[in-house]
Amino acid sequence: MYKKIDNDVLKELKEILGDGNLLTPEDDLDTYAHDEVAELWHLPEAVARVHSTEQVSEILKLAQAKRFPVTPRGAGQGLSGGAVPVFGGLVLSLEKMERILEIDEENLMVSVEPGVITGNLHREVEAAGLFYPPDPASLDSCSIGGNIAENAGGPRAIKYGVTKDYVCGLQAVLPSGEVMELGGKVVKNVTGYNLIQLLTGSEGTLAVVTRILLRLLPKPEQRVDLLVPFNSFQAAGQSVSDIIKARIVPVALEFMERDSVLAVEKLTEKEVPFREAAAHLLITLDGNDKAQIDRDYERIGEICLENGAIDVLVADNPQMRERLWENRKLIIEALQNLSPQHIMDTQDIVVPRTQLPHLLPKIKEVGERYQLPIISFGHAGDGNVHVNIIKDVPEEVWKNQAPKAAEEIYRLAVSLGGMVTGEHGIGLTRKSFLSLGIDQAQIEMMRRIKEDFDPNGILNPGKIFS
Amino acid sequence: MYKKIDNDVLKELKEILGDGNLLTPEDDLDTYAHDEVAELWHLPEAVARVHSTEQVSEILKLAQAKRFPVTPRGAGQGLSGGAVPVFGGLVLSLEKMERILEIDEENLMVSVEPGVITGNLHREVEAAGLFYPPDPASLDSCSIGGNIAENAGGPRAIKYGVTKDYVCGLQAVLPSGEVMELGGKVVKNVTGYNLIQLLTGSEGTLAVVTRILLRLLPKPEQRVDLLVPFNSFQAAGQSVSDIIKARIVPVALEFMERDSVLAVEKLTEKEVPFREAAAHLLITLDGNDKAQIDRDYERIGEICLENGAIDVLVADNPQMRERLWENRKLIIEALQNLSPQHIMDTQDIVVPRTQLPHLLPKIKEVGERYQLPIISFGHAGDGNVHVNIIKDVPEEVWKNQAPKAAEEIYRLAVSLGGMVTGEHGIGLTRKSFLSLGIDQAQIEMMRRIKEDFDPNGILNPGKIFS
Repeated sequence: MYKKIDNDVLKELKEILGDGNLLTPEDDLDTYAHDEVAELWHLPEAVARVHSTEQVSEILKLAQAKRFPVTPRGAGQGLSGGAVPVFGGLVLSLEKMERILEIDEENLMVSVEPGVITGNLHREVEAAGLFYPPDPASLDSCSIGGNIAENAGGPRAIKYGVTKDYVCGLQAVLPSGEVMELGGKVVKNVTGYNLIQLLTGSEGTLAVVTRILLRLLPKPEQRVDLLVPFNSFQAAGQSVSDIIKARIVPVALEFMERDSVLAVEKLTEKEVPFREAAAHLLITLDGNDKAQIDRDYERIGEICLENGAIDVLVADNPQMRERLWENRKLIIEALQNLSPQHIMDTQDIVVPRTQLPHLLPKIKEVGERYQLPIISFGHAGDGNVHVNIIKDVPEEVWKNQAPKAAEEIYRLAVSLGGMVTGEHGIGLTRKSFLSLGIDQAQIEMMRRIKEDFDPNGILNPGKIFS
Repeated sequence: MYKKIDNDVLKELKEILGDGNLLTPEDDLDTYAHDEVAELWHLPEAVARVHSTEQVSEILKLAQAKRFPVTPRGAGQGLSGGAVPVFGGLVLSLEKMERILEIDEENLMVSVEPGVITGNLHREVEAAGLFYPPDPASLDSCSIGGNIAENAGGPRAIKYGVTKDYVCGLQAVLPSGEVMELGGKVVKNVTGYNLIQLLTGSEGTLAVVTRILLRLLPKPEQRVDLLVPFNSFQAAGQSVSDIIKARIVPVALEFMERDSVLAVEKLTEKEVPFREAAAHLLITLDGNDKAQIDRDYERIGEICLENGAIDVLVADNPQMRERLWENRKLIIEALQNLSPQHIMDTQDIVVPRTQLPHLLPKIKEVGERYQLPIISFGHAGDGNVHVNIIKDVPEEVWKNQAPKAAEEIYRLAVSLGGMVTGEHGIGLTRKSFLSLGIDQAQIEMMRRIKEDFDPNGILNPGKIFS
């Protein structure tokens, strides 16, 4: 079906890329064989580190002519295997296209290349008093291009939305090599179908994004963070519902169960506050008016205490805030560290917010039934929970039980009106569950769209659809 | 190419629809022959007033089998001819599917049928302390289904975004008659390609939306409105830029030039404030904190006065606010009333906000060059300007000059980094300008997507693409 990358192709790639930007099997390609999903690993035949849109276009034209598969890659921080080159071929790495091209303070827009690290983008625009809200936990290692590919979310989504809500323009190279210029420095645009939104979250299967125009907000001046420990999941889940019902929309409303917090403690060797609590909520409020924020956090405190919270810890200085959030951001790493075989299945289910108090205990039940440790944390305010099945059992038990437990949890989410993935994408790991969340007519339409963009299937093959 | 609706088809339609819901040429079909675009008029062969998703599905299956065109229609308030049945056939009116199905106060969502009048939706959710921000000027006569079709905006878009930013779920019937259930009560969802965003703004050319799930916000408690008159366009435009640059994001930042205000005065026969000013800005601020709003409006007042504003009128009570906004909302009607032949060409160009001070005087120059009155107003904070070429000249001058002036204005917007339509859609009226804003690769991809959804071209033919 696909052709191998032979010496002639390598020579042409070298001509397109110039010295030092083509990696071949003589180099160490391991980095480009995986993302952050455990056990998914496939070596590419070569890696192209591109520096320009023109190079991307030339490479895709070559791939069309020679029929080798091309897997685009940002910073390799994905959690669905989206950048793993399962059919070999070429990994097209955007890591060197890492310039912030313009911060337009008058139009409140920023123009960037896809390889920019999202955390760097945050710092640069914040230095100009501006604000790019989406903040995946891998902020300091993931790229904005990867965020576009996966439509990344993060803790701030509850108030500020996700990546797609900020994209005003894209430059994207079609699998044919043609370059499309989508949108512009306009915040409203109904000129034809919304291809920007179609590409955002398309997991690098429709086109390669080479330039991104994002709208920005003024940076809020004030912020307060709360850590609220609870003795039960239900109490934490109920507090989330009650906060929303009280018409307060925090910036972040994160849930961490005890085992996730203890895993961080083990990793950092620093004691965490309220380590015995069954669950923690981590809550952020922001705005320009301190008095308003104070009123809101006092009301949130009352709601949590009415639901049986153990205490309400207020972090109103950067050091303390940093400490609270460091623990939250280290969870995935801590869980990987916890499991002796460094393997786990990380899910990304999303349910209506009100279903959270029902969902969380049921997940625990699934774990008990299959005798697998399951540790949950995530974006409670969005109903988006990362469920981690930990490999702390013998290999044969894992192989037999883990997929069954995973499937039950996906089905559970869908049965509660939810979806199989909120912000990580389908990629490779959730392909067999795509049809759980959506009907056959939709899948058929998505397949047709994939064919429109990529009739020969050279771009990121094997992803989303089985 | 298309078959006529014969007696057999009428019989089948009557069976699907039941008594009283099928209109034929024996009835007065004039209402269904046009939207709000002057001079666009084409009679359908029949009109189906559907009451259920099943009826929509049955009708589309019938249309596929018999090959007659189907033009979906909300409340007929469009400004691009999108609901005009240019090939005859059947108008599929959603006006009777007008139920608000559920206001979910815990998940902050509302589920509605497409025929619900947007203003009614506003009132119902506001009675529950909630808020659906998109507010097209035709609020009290347009339908939410039409808003989805056009991805409608409105004055509040500057702070709160447009229709697409609120859609979490859609039920949509494909031209094949198949029903798709897209999304759900989840605020994050990356399960496959984003078909919700593809359908939103697709102008009824891809599927017929039969149910809509929208996310809501808590209703802001405080609001202040300002009317600021200026002696020049540039001063008004510069003030818009300076407000944004000062990191203040108002809810609305509307621009009205003198002639639009005088047209309203003529219509209502009530004197408008500052009737001699060259341009007015109408500004709304909202939030929960009065002190914060007061600080912001004082800063805005300073900025405007520094730019030479004549005065700053503050409306902090509902009666005065109502009066200011009534004038704004009546502009289109007033302009139609102004032109003796009730004809004008209403444009919907959008440019980067900072280009506004350059755009507005250049539009006037075009009018002077072609000796046609041109009156502009619109959403200055979004760079989205409604440019109205008024037919106040003899028929032959109009036919000869108006299209040339229109094309110059479209080209002007694009040359400033803008787009040909910000919130009204391409429809019929802007088909020949589609390729001005976007490149051929995009148009080709849009055509392929249209074919995926509607291979026989029965749904709303003749729109978007020429």
